[in-house]
Amino acid sequence: MSEEVISTDAVIVGAGPCGLFAIFELGLLDIKCHVVDILDRPGGQCAELYPEKPIYDIPALPIVTGSELTHRLLEQAKPFKPEYHFNQMVTELRKLEDGKFELKTDGGIVFHAKVVVIAAGGGSFQPKKPPIPGIDAYEGQSVFYSVKKMEALRGRDILIVGGGDSALDWTLNLQPIANSLTLLHRRDDFRAAPDSVKKMRELVAAGKMQLKLGQVTGLTGDNGVLASAQVKGTDGNFDIAANAMLPFFGLTMKLGPVAEWGLNLHENLVPVDTAKFETSTQGIFAIGDINTYPGKLKLILSGFHEAALMAQEAFHHIHPGERLLFQYTTSSSSLQKKLGVA
Amino acid sequence: MSEEVISTDAVIVGAGPCGLFAIFELGLLDIKCHVVDILDRPGGQCAELYPEKPIYDIPALPIVTGSELTHRLLEQAKPFKPEYHFNQMVTELRKLEDGKFELKTDGGIVFHAKVVVIAAGGGSFQPKKPPIPGIDAYEGQSVFYSVKKMEALRGRDILIVGGGDSALDWTLNLQPIANSLTLLHRRDDFRAAPDSVKKMRELVAAGKMQLKLGQVTGLTGDNGVLASAQVKGTDGNFDIAANAMLPFFGLTMKLGPVAEWGLNLHENLVPVDTAKFETSTQGIFAIGDINTYPGKLKLILSGFHEAALMAQEAFHHIHPGERLLFQYTTSSSSLQKKLGVA
Repeated sequence: MSEEVISTDAVIVGAGPCGLFAIFELGLLDIKCHVVDILDRPGGQCAELYPEKPIYDIPALPIVTGSELTHRLLEQAKPFKPEYHFNQMVTELRKLEDGKFELKTDGGIVFHAKVVVIAAGGGSFQPKKPPIPGIDAYEGQSVFYSVKKMEALRGRDILIVGGGDSALDWTLNLQPIANSLTLLHRRDDFRAAPDSVKKMRELVAAGKMQLKLGQVTGLTGDNGVLASAQVKGTDGNFDIAANAMLPFFGLTMKLGPVAEWGLNLHENLVPVDTAKFETSTQGIFAIGDINTYPGKLKLILSGFHEAALMAQEAFHHIHPGERLLFQYTTSSSSLQKKLGVA
Repeated sequence: MSEEVISTDAVIVGAGPCGLFAIFELGLLDIKCHVVDILDRPGGQCAELYPEKPIYDIPALPIVTGSELTHRLLEQAKPFKPEYHFNQMVTELRKLEDGKFELKTDGGIVFHAKVVVIAAGGGSFQPKKPPIPGIDAYEGQSVFYSVKKMEALRGRDILIVGGGDSALDWTLNLQPIANSLTLLHRRDDFRAAPDSVKKMRELVAAGKMQLKLGQVTGLTGDNGVLASAQVKGTDGNFDIAANAMLPFFGLTMKLGPVAEWGLNLHENLVPVDTAKFETSTQGIFAIGDINTYPGKLKLILSGFHEAALMAQEAFHHIHPGERLLFQYTTSSSSLQKKLGVA
């Protein structure tokens, strides 16, 4: 994978509500941000776990869905032209000789940043793996838990496993470019948008794909190249020929690589002080659900406060010795200029 | 003045944004609130200093006026049925033998509360006094800086001094019940709603009131009962007969009575810890612009966070030893019931 190096003021790890508001608070202080998230879109848990569920305790928003909250925070961050990198997990973080931080993602992006803001919520959303013996050997070559580039799947014999929205959406998206496509689910009942289920059944009726019921019990292949999956069906066992398999069994939250970054941890959380929300490493901050301090509540509104105080110290870290005049958006024409409203 | 005693869980001193959000956070924990404010309406500085000015840094509200923010917070607090007491300054706060707190207002209300939340912003908005020798002797009897009860002014010879909205509004409101009314301003130019100025000029043209230009230099009267005001006009000196004078010279912010409550103070701010936002007195909390701690920023969004953490400790103060299960509004049907949405 090619290594693109991006130099920037701040990298924010996590595009959930706290990460998004951090763009705004850093932006007010002229700190330019790149934002990395493991999910394919902004919003973090709000987008992943409750996009349509109302939240009632965001101050001055008596009722707001996770998806609307995300939209509002994106809008507020927009004047600062953040650059987002989705579907990327930050796997490495280390301090360079010049005091900057190097971050690497599993998608091959390398950042050099003056400050790092960890806003990773409960950690990384990671795919739940199906309990199939030997599956590890096929991962990355024939078994994929997410689709980073559709083209890599063109012309292949694809087996999609699962019955939720991801399984159905990718069935519909990949069927036109696959050589063959089979959807396997343990029963003939789907927890997905009815319209997607209907379209899938139409493709099956038209002979353009297959729907099978059962569970994968084993894989056959060679050197990481899959040849077929063994399935235990309701009416007996059978094989499905496939050289690409995509299991969609949902996501689970893990602390993930953060644990490897040499930060002090306490019960899988990152301890910070309450004046600057800085970790045990100067220049690395942690805000939102991932941090801990006396009195901590895992509330989105607390992450907003943490982002504001963090930004002050991030400024001082980037501009040592420089005086920072504290200004209000209501009265400062310089802040209003940055926001594009003056 | 009669002493009405109100017993309640919490008294919140200040109905600015932080005070209003404190109602919500305490309400989620079943803590019932009375809210006292020196102004005649909720919103604090937002309502008084910038009702129509946009604020850009309230999280997820990319642009909101002080007045809209206030409205939204009132709406959010509504399910908890707070009781508001406007035009009241808390003048005394002391601890009772039973551990409760007694608060007294200048309007004669007495509260007995289990916890007190000081959300008084920059302190009390207090009227700017005109520099007239001996004016103190008339205050409360003949000189008033605000109108608490209009009836007290019925049939009197009223002199209103000033050229802003308050002066004009009270001119129009009091003219029908006054025996005579004079508006005095230092020049024939008003910083008030054009419609109010127009109506005032119509009353002058109809001979129902007088408009005079000049500045009050002295007062004549006896035993606190005003007889006349000496005025230095642009064309010479004259007297205005009046037994009630209302100077409207704007408001200024003072720490006010908070300084007398025996709390530790630091540069006119109330130091608190960052886990509970409690003052030097257990059971008395301070949130928003009036408190101080390492890293403190006078941001509305910080006050929201402070309110949330304060509420947890307020619960433990009211229910010692009781376990408090931390719940989310998004998932807890018990919280949703309290909010009236489940």
